[in-house]
Amino acid sequence: MCGKLQVSVSNNGHQSEPTINLDHGDPTMYECYWKENGQDLSLTIPSFQSLSYFSNPKNLCWFLEPKLEEEIKNLHKNAGNAVTENRHVVVGTGSSQLILAALFALSKSVNDPINPVSVVSASPYYSSYPEMTDFLRSKLFEWSGDALCFDKDGPYIEMVTSPNNPDGVIRESVVNRPEGMVVHDLAYYWPQYTAITSAADHDVMLFTISKCTGHAGSRIGWALVKDESVARKMVKFIEINTIGVSKEAQLRAASILEIISLSCQPAHSKPRELENFFKHSHRQMAKRWQQLRDAVKNNDLFHVSKFPTQYCEFARGSTEAYPAFAWIKCKEGIDCEKLFRGHKILTRSGRRFGCDPEYVRLSMLSRDEDFDLFVQRLSAIRGEAINGN
Amino acid sequence: MCGKLQVSVSNNGHQSEPTINLDHGDPTMYECYWKENGQDLSLTIPSFQSLSYFSNPKNLCWFLEPKLEEEIKNLHKNAGNAVTENRHVVVGTGSSQLILAALFALSKSVNDPINPVSVVSASPYYSSYPEMTDFLRSKLFEWSGDALCFDKDGPYIEMVTSPNNPDGVIRESVVNRPEGMVVHDLAYYWPQYTAITSAADHDVMLFTISKCTGHAGSRIGWALVKDESVARKMVKFIEINTIGVSKEAQLRAASILEIISLSCQPAHSKPRELENFFKHSHRQMAKRWQQLRDAVKNNDLFHVSKFPTQYCEFARGSTEAYPAFAWIKCKEGIDCEKLFRGHKILTRSGRRFGCDPEYVRLSMLSRDEDFDLFVQRLSAIRGEAINGN
Repeated sequence: MCGKLQVSVSNNGHQSEPTINLDHGDPTMYECYWKENGQDLSLTIPSFQSLSYFSNPKNLCWFLEPKLEEEIKNLHKNAGNAVTENRHVVVGTGSSQLILAALFALSKSVNDPINPVSVVSASPYYSSYPEMTDFLRSKLFEWSGDALCFDKDGPYIEMVTSPNNPDGVIRESVVNRPEGMVVHDLAYYWPQYTAITSAADHDVMLFTISKCTGHAGSRIGWALVKDESVARKMVKFIEINTIGVSKEAQLRAASILEIISLSCQPAHSKPRELENFFKHSHRQMAKRWQQLRDAVKNNDLFHVSKFPTQYCEFARGSTEAYPAFAWIKCKEGIDCEKLFRGHKILTRSGRRFGCDPEYVRLSMLSRDEDFDLFVQRLSAIRGEAINGN
Repeated sequence: MCGKLQVSVSNNGHQSEPTINLDHGDPTMYECYWKENGQDLSLTIPSFQSLSYFSNPKNLCWFLEPKLEEEIKNLHKNAGNAVTENRHVVVGTGSSQLILAALFALSKSVNDPINPVSVVSASPYYSSYPEMTDFLRSKLFEWSGDALCFDKDGPYIEMVTSPNNPDGVIRESVVNRPEGMVVHDLAYYWPQYTAITSAADHDVMLFTISKCTGHAGSRIGWALVKDESVARKMVKFIEINTIGVSKEAQLRAASILEIISLSCQPAHSKPRELENFFKHSHRQMAKRWQQLRDAVKNNDLFHVSKFPTQYCEFARGSTEAYPAFAWIKCKEGIDCEKLFRGHKILTRSGRRFGCDPEYVRLSMLSRDEDFDLFVQRLSAIRGEAINGN
C-alpha cells in the first residue's frame, strides 16, 4: 500500500534561502547569555605573561594552570555532577585530545606488543570515536564497533558517553568484563541538559568547556583520573602531542568557570547581577525542545524520543532532560539526512553513529535565528503516502 | 697516561644551591623584552567572544583566525625568512602538532596499506622526532633513524631542522631521492639566531611562536604548505586530534606578531617607542654566547663550535650565528650530561639526539639569573688529568 513516501513542502520558496548547519554541535546558543550577563566581563593577558611551557612543574600535570584546577573543582562542587576528591586533573586541548590520551594511557597499561586493545561503544555512539581511534592506524588500539555486539576475548576499552551523544540517553557500561577499562565521557552531564542525580564517581571521567559554557573555540577539556599511573600516561601523551595546552585558553576557561560558579550563588552573595547560568540555559533548552516537539506534532514522518523526568540535585526538584542534540527518526525507508538536506538543513546521518539512515542527529545549540528558521522549515516538511507501483 | 679524567670544582659550596634546568628550550629569556617594551601591551577577550569552533568556515584551514594569518604573512615579509605567496597557512597547537600532522598527511598521500613510511633525520636530530613518530605505533609511518645511514628503498619523509636543533647548523636534506618527502622545521630561522640569507621556499615549512617571540605557553605554530591536498590532510589531522586550535591563543599570537612587525619599522613610523625585537634579541644572544665562550676558554674539558659569519638580509650586514641551544662536547670518555648533573645543571644528553654521551644540548634561552649562574658554575668546572692505574 504505502511502500514509498513522497515528501512535499508547503512553502516551496526556500530555494534561495540560506542553508542551516546543524551537523556540528557548535554551541553558539550560549553567546546570548554571555552578551546579556558578561558584556563587561573579559580576560586581559599582558604581553609578558605565560611565556614558559610550564604552569606548575611540581604538579603531575605540569602544564595545568593552578587557577584552572581550582575553578574546575569549584564548579563540580557547585554543579554536584562529579567527585573531584583524590583525583588527578589532566587538562587537554578539548576533550578530543583527552579521549586519545585515555586510549593511549589505558592501552599502554595493557602493554601487549602484538594485539591492539579493542575500543568499543554501544550504538548509537559518538560519530568521532571510530575515526579518532583508527586515523593513525595505531598498533596500540583499534576500533571494534558496537559494544552491544562485542564478543572478543581480552582487554578492551569501552567508551561510555552519558548523557549519550547522539541520543541523550543516560548510560552505563554494557560489556562489564574483568579485563575491561571504561572511559566515561561526561561532556553533557551538566544541569541544563539533564537531571544531576548524583556526583559521578568513575575511574576516568572526561569533561569539556565547549558543552558546559559554550566556549568551544577555547579547546579546553579536562579529565578526572583516579589512577596515578594512568594520569601520568595521559600527561605524557599530551606532552608528545602538543607539549601541553595553551595558557591563554586555560586562563580564560578559569575565568569563565569562575563566573559560572559565582552565578550559582544566592543573589545576596553575588558581587553583581548575574543570572544563574545553568537555570538560564535549562530554560532556554526547555523552550527549544518544546518548539521542536510542536513542530513535529501530528506529523508521523518524524519521531522524537521522550525522556523520563528525574529528581535533579542541582535544581532540587524534578526536571526533564533537554539534550544538546535531537536524535530524530524518520519513517522507515527514508534517508533522513538526505531529506533534511533537500530542505537546506544539514544534519548528521544515523549511519555515522553505527545506526540506520532513518536517523539523524541535529544540534539544539545553534543561534536563535538559525533555530527558529529550522523549526519553521521542519514544521513545513510533510510526508504523504503514495501508492507504490 | 691520561686515560681517566677526574673532575674537580673550585668552589665546592654549591650542594645546597638550586638546580639550573637547561634541559628544555623554555624561552623565558624573552620575558625581559616584553616587560620593558610591552608592560602596557595586552590582549583583552570579552566573555562572549570566540565561542564557535569555526574561525572562517570558507578557509581550507577553517579554524585559523584571519587576523593571525594576516600577521603571520606580515611578519615573514618583515623578517624576510620565508615565502608566503601561494601557500596554505595551517595553524597548529605548537609546531609539535604540525610535525605529527605533516607525518600523517605525507604518509596518507603515499597510501601504502602494508609498509609504514620511513621517517628519518640526520644525526644529531631533534630528540623528540623518534618519540613523536613512534609513540602511537602507527602503521602509517615509523622512525628509521639517522638520515645519513638511511638505505631503505621506497618512500620516506626526511625532517630537516634548519638551523638545526641541537647544534645550530644550517642544513639541507641529505637523502635526496625521488620518492622522498621533506618537512622543513624552521623554528629557529629568525634573525636573532642566524643570518637570514634568503626567503625559505620549500614544500612544507614549519614555524612556531615559541622560539620566535618566546611565547611557548601559547602553543601556537604554523605551517606554510605548497600542495593543497597535503594542507587539507594536515587540517584533517588537527580536526580529529583537537578539533582546531584555541582561539585565545591565536588572537594573542596575532597581537604579539603584530607588535614585533611594528617594532621592525623605522622609528618615525612607529606609533610608540618600541625597540626592534629581533635586533634586541640578537644583541642578547650575542652577549650570552660571548659569556659561554669566555667560560670555557682555556678549558680543554669542553668544546663549543664556531659558526661561519654570513650576510643577513634582515640586518643588512654580516652577522654571526647565536643558536638557541649550545651543543657542547666534553673530552672523550666523559658522560657530559652526568658531569653537568653533578654540578646541578640539567642538560640533555647527546644520546637523545642519536649521538655520543660526550655531547649535551643546553638551552641558551633561560632567564638572566639562571644563565648567569650557569656560566659561573660552568667556568668553575675543570678537568684534571690523572694517571690511570
